[in-house]
Amino acid sequence: MDTASLTGKDLAAALNAETTARAQARTEQIGRAPRLALIVANDDPASAWYVNSLRKSAANRGIECDTVDLGADASADMLRTELSVRSADPATDAIMLQTPLPAGVSLDDVSPAIAATKDVDGVSPLSLGLLTAGSAGFAPATAEAVVELLKHHGIALEGRHVAIVGRSNVVGKPLAQLLLAENATVTVCHSRTTDLPAVTAAADIVVAAAGRIGLVTGANLRPGAVVIDVGTNESADGSIVGDVDPESVRGTAAGLSPVPGGVGPVTTALLMRHVVIAAEQAGRTADTAPA
Amino acid sequence: MDTASLTGKDLAAALNAETTARAQARTEQIGRAPRLALIVANDDPASAWYVNSLRKSAANRGIECDTVDLGADASADMLRTELSVRSADPATDAIMLQTPLPAGVSLDDVSPAIAATKDVDGVSPLSLGLLTAGSAGFAPATAEAVVELLKHHGIALEGRHVAIVGRSNVVGKPLAQLLLAENATVTVCHSRTTDLPAVTAAADIVVAAAGRIGLVTGANLRPGAVVIDVGTNESADGSIVGDVDPESVRGTAAGLSPVPGGVGPVTTALLMRHVVIAAEQAGRTADTAPA
Repeated sequence: MDTASLTGKDLAAALNAETTARAQARTEQIGRAPRLALIVANDDPASAWYVNSLRKSAANRGIECDTVDLGADASADMLRTELSVRSADPATDAIMLQTPLPAGVSLDDVSPAIAATKDVDGVSPLSLGLLTAGSAGFAPATAEAVVELLKHHGIALEGRHVAIVGRSNVVGKPLAQLLLAENATVTVCHSRTTDLPAVTAAADIVVAAAGRIGLVTGANLRPGAVVIDVGTNESADGSIVGDVDPESVRGTAAGLSPVPGGVGPVTTALLMRHVVIAAEQAGRTADTAPA
Repeated sequence: MDTASLTGKDLAAALNAETTARAQARTEQIGRAPRLALIVANDDPASAWYVNSLRKSAANRGIECDTVDLGADASADMLRTELSVRSADPATDAIMLQTPLPAGVSLDDVSPAIAATKDVDGVSPLSLGLLTAGSAGFAPATAEAVVELLKHHGIALEGRHVAIVGRSNVVGKPLAQLLLAENATVTVCHSRTTDLPAVTAAADIVVAAAGRIGLVTGANLRPGAVVIDVGTNESADGSIVGDVDPESVRGTAAGLSPVPGGVGPVTTALLMRHVVIAAEQAGRTADTAPA
């Protein structure tokens, strides 16, 4: 069987073109560009690299981006204050809190200070609950990217059995909710799953999101299964590789998303789309508010 | 194989004894009993029956219970106002909103007005998100009852494969989160699942929570599987029956929870325990607040 490469580049380009147009329309409407606040409290090189790529992507879409660096020793109180101020600031449309956070500060401690209407990466408990309940709110962009990538490549979800390997609050758990909303049957597995190969072999679609090199191999797949690789791991030679062993999967899987170039560009494109949506919705509320 | 009856009566009795003692201790500490507000906006006989049973159970535990009947034509605004007032009222420790709600009013519309600290049946999006994120908060009592019933009967969850049939916001979805937190592998299936018998046959534990008589039969089970029946359906003769066909399961399943007498009494007992916990936590906050 030929294994199709489920790339994210075309989808990301299409999303980006739409986002750029919407950002411009919004800018013309209210006289300023949509604005994203990136809150940083670490000195991690990978985070710095990611912040830089988000800034470039925002600039290319016509989105203003404020980077607020509170330092690697910022307290939970400092973070909550900054997030609350930005949540209340009418000139800030969207907020992203970068990880890692300072030692002793957990995402649960501080993310509730992000207003749900500005929580464009869906990290707060309220955003996660709105997603689970099927209400309006922003999904974590990586989880949404998996669903959008599958749809873009014409892979039906209704009634299909999807195995998600990994149960993080930012990918596995919200992805399960998004897939249930698409009427998929969803299994969430993880490090304590007794017989992972049996679970993945029973699935039509396997999503690898555990952050472990070589987690999914062709031997653990049903022939014709579709595999989405969310992993971004640094290999021994310094290159970025996913959770799936692509060589072993080839010939067994019907499709595999590459790393890099699969879920990644779609994630960034969806984040920028969320920023514009947040700006449009803030506008709608303000536009309809009594003078 | 003998199929054990996984009754909830002993567990409920033990929980109730503990709750009664804690309610009394709290009453002595602050000079008033823990107080639950039951908000009703329907004229449904089943709801009236349930409210009455909750009132009796509260009285037996030493919990005060206010029933607030807003009428079957209450508006979303009226409900939100009542829930907000009770959320802010220091004399109300816990709030339960009964369903069904008036036509045109959804739980999502009004449940965000319930403070998470008083949301003892875990119905608001924030409560659902806190549960999903693994943070402090109240789980929906029915979902928690399934886990507590399994533990009470000594059924291990870590690494076991659990199939949940039903994806409601009050049972299936929160139960999936509770089981993941116990390190189970969790599959959520539903009405659009293509091959439900294959999914349940692959599971060590099957939870039937779809509200459909005869949904799970012995033919769809792995021999030795454990089955928890969350269904409460009215049968043709007016009796209450579950989602599982008990006769067909006998001899195949290692255990089956009866309906009635399984999950039901544990659910009510956990609700009352939540009320006392809410009262204790409100107390703790008040006790430590500056004078």
